[in-house]
Amino acid sequence: MQRWSEGPSGLVFGSDYNPEQWPAEVRADDVRLMREAGVNLVSVGIFSWGLLEPEPDRFDFDWFDDVLDDLHAGGIGVSLATATASPPAWLTQQHPEVLPVDADGRRVTFGSRQSWCPSSPVYRERSLKLVRALAERYGEHPALRLWHVSNELGCHNARCYCAVSATAFRGWLATRYADVAALNAAWATAFWSQHYTSLEQVQVPAHTSSFHNPAQALDFARFCSDELLGQHLAEKEVLRAITPDVPVTTNFMVGSQLNPLDYGRWAREQDVVSNDHYLIHGAYDDPRGELAYAADLTRGAASGNPWLLMEHSTSAVNWQPVNVAKAAGEMLQDSLSHVARGADGICFFQWRQSAGGAEQWHSALVPHAGEDSERFREVVELGAVLGRLGELRDSTVTNDVAILVDWQNAWAMESPTLPSQRVGHADLALRVHGLLRAAHTGADVVPVTAHPDDLAAVLSGYRVLVVPTLYLCDDTTAAAVTAAAESGTHVLVTYFSGIVDASVRVRLGGYPGAFRDLLGVRVEEFHPLSDGVAGELDDGTVGDVWAEIASAHDDTEVLVRYADGAAAGCPALTRRDLPSGAHAWYLGTSLDDEALAGLLRTVCTAAGVTPVAEASGPVDVVRRSSADGSWLFALNHGEEDATVVVRGFDLVGEVEVDGLELEPGQSAVVREV
Amino acid sequence: MQRWSEGPSGLVFGSDYNPEQWPAEVRADDVRLMREAGVNLVSVGIFSWGLLEPEPDRFDFDWFDDVLDDLHAGGIGVSLATATASPPAWLTQQHPEVLPVDADGRRVTFGSRQSWCPSSPVYRERSLKLVRALAERYGEHPALRLWHVSNELGCHNARCYCAVSATAFRGWLATRYADVAALNAAWATAFWSQHYTSLEQVQVPAHTSSFHNPAQALDFARFCSDELLGQHLAEKEVLRAITPDVPVTTNFMVGSQLNPLDYGRWAREQDVVSNDHYLIHGAYDDPRGELAYAADLTRGAASGNPWLLMEHSTSAVNWQPVNVAKAAGEMLQDSLSHVARGADGICFFQWRQSAGGAEQWHSALVPHAGEDSERFREVVELGAVLGRLGELRDSTVTNDVAILVDWQNAWAMESPTLPSQRVGHADLALRVHGLLRAAHTGADVVPVTAHPDDLAAVLSGYRVLVVPTLYLCDDTTAAAVTAAAESGTHVLVTYFSGIVDASVRVRLGGYPGAFRDLLGVRVEEFHPLSDGVAGELDDGTVGDVWAEIASAHDDTEVLVRYADGAAAGCPALTRRDLPSGAHAWYLGTSLDDEALAGLLRTVCTAAGVTPVAEASGPVDVVRRSSADGSWLFALNHGEEDATVVVRGFDLVGEVEVDGLELEPGQSAVVREV
Amino acid sequence: MQRWSEGPSGLVFGSDYNPEQWPAEVRADDVRLMREAGVNLVSVGIFSWGLLEPEPDRFDFDWFDDVLDDLHAGGIGVSLATATASPPAWLTQQHPEVLPVDADGRRVTFGSRQSWCPSSPVYRERSLKLVRALAERYGEHPALRLWHVSNELGCHNARCYCAVSATAFRGWLATRYADVAALNAAWATAFWSQHYTSLEQVQVPAHTSSFHNPAQALDFARFCSDELLGQHLAEKEVLRAITPDVPVTTNFMVGSQLNPLDYGRWAREQDVVSNDHYLIHGAYDDPRGELAYAADLTRGAASGNPWLLMEHSTSAVNWQPVNVAKAAGEMLQDSLSHVARGADGICFFQWRQSAGGAEQWHSALVPHAGEDSERFREVVELGAVLGRLGELRDSTVTNDVAILVDWQNAWAMESPTLPSQRVGHADLALRVHGLLRAAHTGADVVPVTAHPDDLAAVLSGYRVLVVPTLYLCDDTTAAAVTAAAESGTHVLVTYFSGIVDASVRVRLGGYPGAFRDLLGVRVEEFHPLSDGVAGELDDGTVGDVWAEIASAHDDTEVLVRYADGAAAGCPALTRRDLPSGAHAWYLGTSLDDEALAGLLRTVCTAAGVTPVAEASGPVDVVRRSSADGSWLFALNHGEEDATVVVRGFDLVGEVEVDGLELEPGQSAVVREV
Repeated sequence: MQRWSEGPSGLVFGSDYNPEQWPAEVRADDVRLMREAGVNLVSVGIFSWGLLEPEPDRFDFDWFDDVLDDLHAGGIGVSLATATASPPAWLTQQHPEVLPVDADGRRVTFGSRQSWCPSSPVYRERSLKLVRALAERYGEHPALRLWHVSNELGCHNARCYCAVSATAFRGWLATRYADVAALNAAWATAFWSQHYTSLEQVQVPAHTSSFHNPAQALDFARFCSDELLGQHLAEKEVLRAITPDVPVTTNFMVGSQLNPLDYGRWAREQDVVSNDHYLIHGAYDDPRGELAYAADLTRGAASGNPWLLMEHSTSAVNWQPVNVAKAAGEMLQDSLSHVARGADGICFFQWRQSAGGAEQWHSALVPHAGEDSERFREVVELGAVLGRLGELRDSTVTNDVAILVDWQNAWAMESPTLPSQRVGHADLALRVHGLLRAAHTGADVVPVTAHPDDLAAVLSGYRVLVVPTLYLCDDTTAAAVTAAAESGTHVLVTYFSGIVDASVRVRLGGYPGAFRDLLGVRVEEFHPLSDGVAGELDDGTVGDVWAEIASAHDDTEVLVRYADGAAAGCPALTRRDLPSGAHAWYLGTSLDDEALAGLLRTVCTAAGVTPVAEASGPVDVVRRSSADGSWLFALNHGEEDATVVVRGFDLVGEVEVDGLELEPGQSAVVREV
Repeated sequence: MQRWSEGPSGLVFGSDYNPEQWPAEVRADDVRLMREAGVNLVSVGIFSWGLLEPEPDRFDFDWFDDVLDDLHAGGIGVSLATATASPPAWLTQQHPEVLPVDADGRRVTFGSRQSWCPSSPVYRERSLKLVRALAERYGEHPALRLWHVSNELGCHNARCYCAVSATAFRGWLATRYADVAALNAAWATAFWSQHYTSLEQVQVPAHTSSFHNPAQALDFARFCSDELLGQHLAEKEVLRAITPDVPVTTNFMVGSQLNPLDYGRWAREQDVVSNDHYLIHGAYDDPRGELAYAADLTRGAASGNPWLLMEHSTSAVNWQPVNVAKAAGEMLQDSLSHVARGADGICFFQWRQSAGGAEQWHSALVPHAGEDSERFREVVELGAVLGRLGELRDSTVTNDVAILVDWQNAWAMESPTLPSQRVGHADLALRVHGLLRAAHTGADVVPVTAHPDDLAAVLSGYRVLVVPTLYLCDDTTAAAVTAAAESGTHVLVTYFSGIVDASVRVRLGGYPGAFRDLLGVRVEEFHPLSDGVAGELDDGTVGDVWAEIASAHDDTEVLVRYADGAAAGCPALTRRDLPSGAHAWYLGTSLDDEALAGLLRTVCTAAGVTPVAEASGPVDVVRRSSADGSWLFALNHGEEDATVVVRGFDLVGEVEVDGLELEPGQSAVVREV
Repeated sequence: MQRWSEGPSGLVFGSDYNPEQWPAEVRADDVRLMREAGVNLVSVGIFSWGLLEPEPDRFDFDWFDDVLDDLHAGGIGVSLATATASPPAWLTQQHPEVLPVDADGRRVTFGSRQSWCPSSPVYRERSLKLVRALAERYGEHPALRLWHVSNELGCHNARCYCAVSATAFRGWLATRYADVAALNAAWATAFWSQHYTSLEQVQVPAHTSSFHNPAQALDFARFCSDELLGQHLAEKEVLRAITPDVPVTTNFMVGSQLNPLDYGRWAREQDVVSNDHYLIHGAYDDPRGELAYAADLTRGAASGNPWLLMEHSTSAVNWQPVNVAKAAGEMLQDSLSHVARGADGICFFQWRQSAGGAEQWHSALVPHAGEDSERFREVVELGAVLGRLGELRDSTVTNDVAILVDWQNAWAMESPTLPSQRVGHADLALRVHGLLRAAHTGADVVPVTAHPDDLAAVLSGYRVLVVPTLYLCDDTTAAAVTAAAESGTHVLVTYFSGIVDASVRVRLGGYPGAFRDLLGVRVEEFHPLSDGVAGELDDGTVGDVWAEIASAHDDTEVLVRYADGAAAGCPALTRRDLPSGAHAWYLGTSLDDEALAGLLRTVCTAAGVTPVAEASGPVDVVRRSSADGSWLFALNHGEEDATVVVRGFDLVGEVEVDGLELEPGQSAVVREV
């Protein structure tokens, strides 16, 4: 299979390109400016179904031929979208049942994007016809580098509650469960009189009178992820049959929130993992910390392989309450943060900022002001820097610490009937990642579902494994964590982990059932803490969010105890020393940043983990390496100067360095000697 | 009719019991542990419809026979649910119209609980068939103590807006009103062109373009309460016909918020009033004060008779944002608080904590950790204490102060078009109750509708009657309050009371129309105060929430006046002395806790009301008494020591006492000498 | 055409009058009290459809004859409603499709008011039949002064999303656009695959999967305003045909928020503009400042002509969370504030406070307490004062400053995909108005759409024109602003103005496209500021909400620059001096009140604008004048004394004055000498 970028070396640089928004004569300017900027790959056709197939089965490819030909003439490669992301008006006019329905029973109206039910056979049939037509027409086009299936699958239509989806859900359940008795057992339907005598009685968990059955809700989340994956695979199958040598991807939306698609599972179906990422101001104290986490998680989903950043923004987006723009240098630094974490390409939405339409206020490479703008000049500079980083291609990132994450656990924790809504898996994983990063310690983020067969082996490869509030933990994962510890990996498990199995059934006999023996701790009862009710611990720190009535086994050392409240005297932090030499740590409460950073430092030190580089100040340090050498990224995101001990050649500043002193906002990528 | 507990003495102790959630072999353990804990009554079958009648008209009673037999063999009595609470999947699969519809027009989906329209004839028919089958099979079972109709009726389906409900509403209106002209008059339909020429035109007050007609909304609330009561009565009728000697109850959800069912009315249909109560953290500053209020209100609904606490929790629930668990001793103290206020039995949801399903995170008598847990050991201790309190059975609580409450008034105050949304009946009643309790003064909470025939006589039995913001006051209630005052009961009426009649029509000529003559006050205009706009009163206190342009009659003493704001100089607190010797007090604004407590003290002192016992500190003191003697409950809920002057034998500590000194969290029940 | 008040002089004073709410015998009292208060015009029949036509085509006019006859006998004129505001129950019973549907697909139920779809042909037919019947019966009635079409059109039904509305929307689009290609171009449908091949595919912008197309949303807003205007014009046409000499109005709801109807457009269809206005406490820091703004905007919509205040309240309303009542004197002062700004009549909702129905807690001229009340005595006093102001009739208000507003811009800014949700047109216009008012400087508020043909001429008549965040600016408006500046009007344009054209397409090449040349500024990129992120400016003030990367032309003076943040060094305030002598000012950020007031003072001073009167303190000063003289209104809304330099006769205090000293709450209307 050919590579998705043009040659044996060099990073990808590009964007979505939607020339249909502009008069044809603009395209010559576009190609000229792309070349000026060093753009080498653009994604075309993403939202073009309406123009490519203006009426059922009547395709209008002429204008699109011109686009691809012009790009190729200009030396620009093409990531060719299957154009199925947004069906045209005629489809939902003829088949309103293709429009998705939300949990409140509202069927959406045409006039936005991605308005299709993932289970719709009509949509499936029409979309595959289009994919086939595109593959047949452009499969041999010399500009073609990569197939780009649909776009941000599930962004708006991840969970459809229509009757068609309900039927599909029942079909999915029929595959998952041997019979209705198995479903009844897995879902605990004996309670609340939910016993089913036929799968035909099962509904999607739409609006109902009170709480949903949590196992039903989780299975529906699984179904929804699978259903969209089914669309991806169906498109991929068509493409593969016609163009067996062209790699296929679909752009993920990996973020810290572990959204509705299980990208750990999805990544296994990609020829190259690609991702879209946008800074979210307001929701995160440190949006660029979330970027770093998401990039590490994307690499984790890709099992450590290089990946492609398919979309981010040159400046502001248009969908937040206040769309913060990027100051000078931030676009470069954000791009380098992705490259540092394994991205072999940096693309954006979109090439030219729209004059109209719903995304007219989303930034682009060519802004409304035109090429005579600081923004475009920064784009040209970015292209030049990326050009100098071509030697990094195919290099990888190696870390000693892993953070275990699981989409299925995140879905299980969507339940409104947990002991506390203040507890979260994704947020804690992000927080641990941020504290490690601040300590200049690299961490991989490892999704359970990226490793269906080799999880124990993967985890055993780390010196430290953090298991952050893994409420749902299936037997395989529990065994893998234990195996890793027994093989020498130091493990830190936090509160409310290992509680329920894959069917959301509590592991009985004392929490945390999946890790009770490993950790040497038995918890009898949780005492979630209300906001503002943090309690003292006997080492002078404070335990927030969570406390528990617990006891430690004889072979387990209690390091910290609750000093007040209902759990006074009970263990809050324990350590069990394993024959392997590894420690099994258990943290039963939530610590503040300083205390949690201290604990992570203690755990890492005991495990022999060292920082990526000796550094001081608010600087991200990440290393990529390959058989050819290593490159240290140093990105000062802070408002103070930072120093990094490193020797080599800085590919950004194009200067030999022996120790870095970075001003706020300054970045370096040092080829180490 | 037989008693709902097993013998002539002794309190009930037990729980819901849902053995269908567990393998059959667990039941032997269950019975063993129940006996260890002293459990003597369990509610079974509540959510068992799906398993008892797995297909229409095919009943599967064998497993249930075993459950009842095993319980009986273990000496455990049974509160037998009619199992109608949650219809099975096949019913709503065959008859989707049974599923209720909310005000937004959303029909719920199957998969939760209580998903049935209260007006559904299909549901009525199917549910009564089941009730009949159960009564015929188990009516003679020796374990049977009590029929438990449905479960928490109206918890999720109190107000259904479907077409079937609309038809039923019109039928209800046809009974209430002589003709459509009477309805037009009562609803003031001349305004907004709402005139009806036929009852067939009347709709349920679902989502509409602007505000609803307030009389329509109130009648709909009345209808909804009546409609569910109709289901209760229909089930009761079946049971009574087959088992005339077995008492029938249904578990209320009495709380301070005066929820959608008029339990004052409902209580008149119960052989024994039973109630479910849960602490609500977050919503109340003092959740245990709310418990005390709810328990007193439950007794009030029961016209002072002993009642049964059918459900509370051993520790945390699972439906609040943060589900606060109970510290050591709190389960005992909460239980005693209910017993103190007239409960002759203490039951819980549920026996064994679910491994799966929507309530898996709700605490139980046997926690996930199993019998080897502090929680279960506390349960055993509770059983022992309750065992020692058997002598209290059938004793009652007598207080000198009554607080008048009315569900219909609470419903009328749901209106979004009142002068201020900062004014509430239920909240003020709760607050008055709490201040009296802090002063160690007992108060009965008397629902208007519990006394359709003898309200005046009941109210006249108190030394003090508080009427807290009784916006809607029908003629009977107005007359009863006046009659009580004229017979010597001191009456304190607060602002915005006595304003509208039973049809929500304003009593004209100056507020408060229903009490103008009694109080000797005439109010011309309300001046609701915005948050943060409290005004000075001329006694140095502060008036919040409410002010008014008012004048006092010549025979009325103005005790406090507004010192600033639009109402400056107008009376804020008045007293009229009646020939009976009683005072008629009127408070036209909202006072802070200190000032309101002072006013209540003044009113009580003038009426000769004394505390339940001489006490100091944050201690609840409540007395139950009977022909056999009296028992003083003293519960220290606070964080400081408390003392109580009392002599006798403490049944909790099993010790003779002459004066109590109670540590925080300590409780005593003293058989007085 | 006859005048809408009874004679050649004198102001209107009156209210809505809904006698059908009361027994017939109350009417004699009503007329007696109206005469006592000096009421000379009442609006009748507004909500009477249900009683006037109790069954289809059966009219019951007898009772209504009596009402009009009694009023006429009492010398009270009638503003006769067409009674179409709220259709009766029988209409929606027979035709449920008349009930409107909201964006979530919920069809409203009967039982509130104004429950009709503006596009319903059934409603149109039935309503016009009623109008015709009324006009035929009462067209010659001697009490008739004015036709009052419907009531507060669009208050609750402005935007209907039903299928009938969708069809009407497509019809409206067919008129607006030459063909579907034109629509595709205007809406930029090439993006997100929204290309239409037939107008039949176009939907109303109801609930959808993500953001709506902004041009579709704006066209729908335009359609909705036009659709209701169509109802107004249809009713007016019927009335005009039968009673050509009776003026026709419909009561607007002009407020600062620029609600769903384009009253600038609507005003052109009124024989007299009338408006309803209510103080909104809580939403505005200064509700009476909002009143002043709304009154000035009403006059602006009326192109400066006198207008009629059709509704305000004597005291509290009933639809706010806390309905603040009016203190003594405030009703008079609020009334005078409207008269000062051009109202030739002061009416209220409603005559007698309802005993029942949804507005029972809305104040009235005769309160629940009856005529023996301070409220009614104040009403009588108000009538007397208005009687003394009769000489002001037909006088007008002239100001040197104009604030340009546009409903269409406000609708365009409803988009959730703008750079920042912290930016608003209406709020900024209100704020500028308030600061000018505090400086005793009068300002007209000029709606773009009130002047389809003469906008340039109108704007050129001012010394100063403020253009507050006019995001959408069509070519005509852009040209008019430029023409005004070129003719000598000083122009102050604020940030995010002149950005998109009438189709919401961005004007390219650097913002603000419509004013780039006029202002001599080119903006490359916006930097919206999050809450709490205000930046320093180099003159020591602070820039909030907004910053931008900009540069000034050579002929443009940069007065203030950003001192920090992403835009540091860029211009924040500029001035370009035009050959006409006028300055073109551009403010690129948001200033605090002190700084913005200072800028307005600078701009006004440079333009030779002087205050309305020399005054100090928190006093509103407004002048009306005519060929007969001038009258200075001075209203002290504040809590401190105020002084005004003026000589003449105060018609309120009935005293000669030479300089005013006004206590808090005191008002004067001085006939100047």
